[in-house]
Amino acid sequence: MTNKNISIFDSTLRDGAQGQGISFSLEDKLKIVRALDDIGVTYIEAGNPGSNPKDMEFFKRIKEVKLNRAKIAAFGSTRRSNIKAEDDKNIKNLLSADTDVVVVFGKSWDFQVTEILKTTLDENLNMISDTIKYLIDKGKEVIFDAEHFFDGYKDNNEYALSTIKVAEKAGASTVVLCDTNGGTLPNEVKDIASEAISNIGGNVGIHCHDDIGMAVANSIVAAQVGINHIQGTFIGMGERCGNANLSAIIPTLKLKMGHEIIDDQNLSKLTSVARFIAEISNITLKDETPYVGNSAFAHKGGMHIDAVCKDSKSYEHIIPESVGNKRRFLISEVSGKSTILSEIQKIFPQISKESKEVQIITDRLKELEYEGYQFEGAEGTVELVMRKIIGKYKPFFKLNHFKVFAEQPSDNGEFTSSVMINVTVDGKEEMNAAEGEGPVNALDKALRKALEVFYPQLKDVRLVDYKVRVLDSESATEAKVRVLIESTDGVENWSTVGVSRDIIQASWIALVDSIEYKLIKDIERKVKTYF
Amino acid sequence: MTNKNISIFDSTLRDGAQGQGISFSLEDKLKIVRALDDIGVTYIEAGNPGSNPKDMEFFKRIKEVKLNRAKIAAFGSTRRSNIKAEDDKNIKNLLSADTDVVVVFGKSWDFQVTEILKTTLDENLNMISDTIKYLIDKGKEVIFDAEHFFDGYKDNNEYALSTIKVAEKAGASTVVLCDTNGGTLPNEVKDIASEAISNIGGNVGIHCHDDIGMAVANSIVAAQVGINHIQGTFIGMGERCGNANLSAIIPTLKLKMGHEIIDDQNLSKLTSVARFIAEISNITLKDETPYVGNSAFAHKGGMHIDAVCKDSKSYEHIIPESVGNKRRFLISEVSGKSTILSEIQKIFPQISKESKEVQIITDRLKELEYEGYQFEGAEGTVELVMRKIIGKYKPFFKLNHFKVFAEQPSDNGEFTSSVMINVTVDGKEEMNAAEGEGPVNALDKALRKALEVFYPQLKDVRLVDYKVRVLDSESATEAKVRVLIESTDGVENWSTVGVSRDIIQASWIALVDSIEYKLIKDIERKVKTYF
Repeated sequence: MTNKNISIFDSTLRDGAQGQGISFSLEDKLKIVRALDDIGVTYIEAGNPGSNPKDMEFFKRIKEVKLNRAKIAAFGSTRRSNIKAEDDKNIKNLLSADTDVVVVFGKSWDFQVTEILKTTLDENLNMISDTIKYLIDKGKEVIFDAEHFFDGYKDNNEYALSTIKVAEKAGASTVVLCDTNGGTLPNEVKDIASEAISNIGGNVGIHCHDDIGMAVANSIVAAQVGINHIQGTFIGMGERCGNANLSAIIPTLKLKMGHEIIDDQNLSKLTSVARFIAEISNITLKDETPYVGNSAFAHKGGMHIDAVCKDSKSYEHIIPESVGNKRRFLISEVSGKSTILSEIQKIFPQISKESKEVQIITDRLKELEYEGYQFEGAEGTVELVMRKIIGKYKPFFKLNHFKVFAEQPSDNGEFTSSVMINVTVDGKEEMNAAEGEGPVNALDKALRKALEVFYPQLKDVRLVDYKVRVLDSESATEAKVRVLIESTDGVENWSTVGVSRDIIQASWIALVDSIEYKLIKDIERKVKTYF
Repeated sequence: MTNKNISIFDSTLRDGAQGQGISFSLEDKLKIVRALDDIGVTYIEAGNPGSNPKDMEFFKRIKEVKLNRAKIAAFGSTRRSNIKAEDDKNIKNLLSADTDVVVVFGKSWDFQVTEILKTTLDENLNMISDTIKYLIDKGKEVIFDAEHFFDGYKDNNEYALSTIKVAEKAGASTVVLCDTNGGTLPNEVKDIASEAISNIGGNVGIHCHDDIGMAVANSIVAAQVGINHIQGTFIGMGERCGNANLSAIIPTLKLKMGHEIIDDQNLSKLTSVARFIAEISNITLKDETPYVGNSAFAHKGGMHIDAVCKDSKSYEHIIPESVGNKRRFLISEVSGKSTILSEIQKIFPQISKESKEVQIITDRLKELEYEGYQFEGAEGTVELVMRKIIGKYKPFFKLNHFKVFAEQPSDNGEFTSSVMINVTVDGKEEMNAAEGEGPVNALDKALRKALEVFYPQLKDVRLVDYKVRVLDSESATEAKVRVLIESTDGVENWSTVGVSRDIIQASWIALVDSIEYKLIKDIERKVKTYF
């Protein structure tokens, strides 16, 4: 039995916030709610008003926001043992969040009831039942999260099943089977979820964690046996190894299993919503993330690239654009002339396969790779190499000299680096200097101070990423280093690369490329015919 | 049917090298082979001698390395159409790698044969058969990778099955079902792998990609229906979304399914091997990685921490130490003391659990970790931290000052860095200077020149490895850097670490630790009672 109507329940703001390093401001939460609603999730679990008083302000603010479809849910636990639900402080807080939907979690594992909660198995059933009934009396839709359902079932299947039966009887709209510890195998999910479904007349959901790398697969397997509510976090963040990644589950349900949970247009927002949430959460979305990662449709092997050019299904399981992502060909030592031609034609469409420049550029890139360059993700430098060969380049300044000084101990007691630099632009010489955190930071500052005199637009530029890779590190401090920097002017980001035995020189090469790339782009924006 | 004897086949050095940003040096590859062999994988696929001539040198060098268990495999394709296997250049290269095992991939999807290879379905079967027979004649064990087996089966099951039947008949030791595009669902893997197994008398393997986040689950599902050979990469790296992550598959097979594929002691190396491979590959192992990530057993919620303290199975699916990882509490500061005690007792067996130094050392290491230090593989620095607190340390020299100079262009036209240094040893001052490839190399040389006057044994010391990692790279050139150096005196190797916003200072910290560690060890060897 497969149910084509599956609710998508996002817990980025509640279970996701349990992830290491995650801390949302109120504004962050509002932005994420809007993005999740926009793409069409069914429920947004937005906080735990009982345990986190900061969440209360959010629940006040969110009532002013008009949402298209999503229902906001507040999360809390069953009442404590041996008190009335109406006397429980956490349940009062849960109610005061004033949401239409509340999620109540309770214990389904007998061991947790007796050893952690220190109460009786019967009282735990009463806690579940009373809490749900009380909240329904208050007009709420109640979703019941059966914590540790799978571990509980394996230890005492009868008791685990009794917890969800009690919850359903008390009026829960959905009972959710939680793999709280994340260690359950797909075949176990299949069998246990099937058994739960056959015991419950209403909606059954699934909530998985990724501790053995199965959260996505387990959610899908559960959908195949008939659950109709999937909980997760949009990009998989959460405690320990994270929660089920909805940005992988949603497209699989729709594209591979025929569940029309969101429409095509919303599906095409998948990548941008995932990246937006990563940005707001200040975490790096792994390039390899299924469907939405930067490398999800990136091809490196020359043979693969050739085949994808013939027919994309050769090495792509879906059309990248259907989820708003795009195909990339990585320029590497294994990539062929056709990859490079397609890169050239993005900037210079008039260059054809027969143009002699194609071979010269290919050879030059290979030569640089042999020296230790790597062009994946360094499209700024690649463009400059092409421009220099095609003749669409002029230098923007001439370096006369720079000098780096560093000493320990220094006058102010801290380790400091300083740089003096002398450049010429249009016949005018400029001398400048800067101190910085390390020689490269000082060099970056000094160069930009000197050039801003001539190119004030460089004031908008800042470095957003700096990576150092020691090549063949066994030559130790004599080894070559590769420096990759990413820059932004607030509108566009670009990356450049430099290689040298000297880290200062490698950084210098990448810095110069970064500045030249910016200045070329500015001219192109203003005067289309400049070159 | 479940086979308890499953081969683990690692392709980090071949398919893993297709990942974005991955580029291994020869020395990197040798180190990774040793680590994989040490933990007990069955096969190591180490390169594609046909497409990458650089790999040939590796295959020469690896023959000198004595391995415990692992068999080295070279990878290549079936012969081209309409030529003889012995005339195929790639097959010649494959043979000249001179490995006992070769992996041959061939097409199993009819569409790929006719549209990409542009040959006939019959000729493709001949290509598979001829290539395998030819290589077996040359004395090889041949593993056949059936590329796109699942997509092929869905389009034309009869043809897909015929490719593996032909391969088995030609003598392949194992036929491997590849989900090349990574879009197959677990139930499809189950059904199609079962069908393949029922058609093949011998060994059947699985090779999954993670494009829908199912590579690990699909590998496990395949093992449950009887495949006995699993291909993947140790930490999941690979083209697009990566390959099946063996560091998640191995512990699940052993701890949850009873396959004794590696022994307990090797399993306890899982985390350190995963982190070592990440370090060598210069990629960041995601904290959330199942089993081996830094957060895999990290608890943030207070309620969860309380429950884990009562009984770890409350929120941990396995004992973290069984895979060499450890529990962390993100808010409280309760963790780690027992681990640190056992490290201390390795050097100072007289220190007991009650000694006040244990807490002081624990606090100091945590403080340094908070600043960005990482002590895995930096045992030299850890020992010095312990010695300083226990009082078994004296400084060997005093730095008066050093000054670093670098300039471009310089007198000799090359970019040069030079360092002047002034140190005092036993009341005697020594001034010295050196030029080098970059400021750190110059500093290393100058420091050792100055100290060799007093400690001639430092002449034997050289750096064998130097790694730089930019921490929080989004702060760009102002970010902190961590420098890890490995030194040797020809008898012993040791590693030390330094962290600073300034790469010169971070390197200085690691260099000083390296020299002090060496001098302490020498004294201990000569005068056991020195301290």
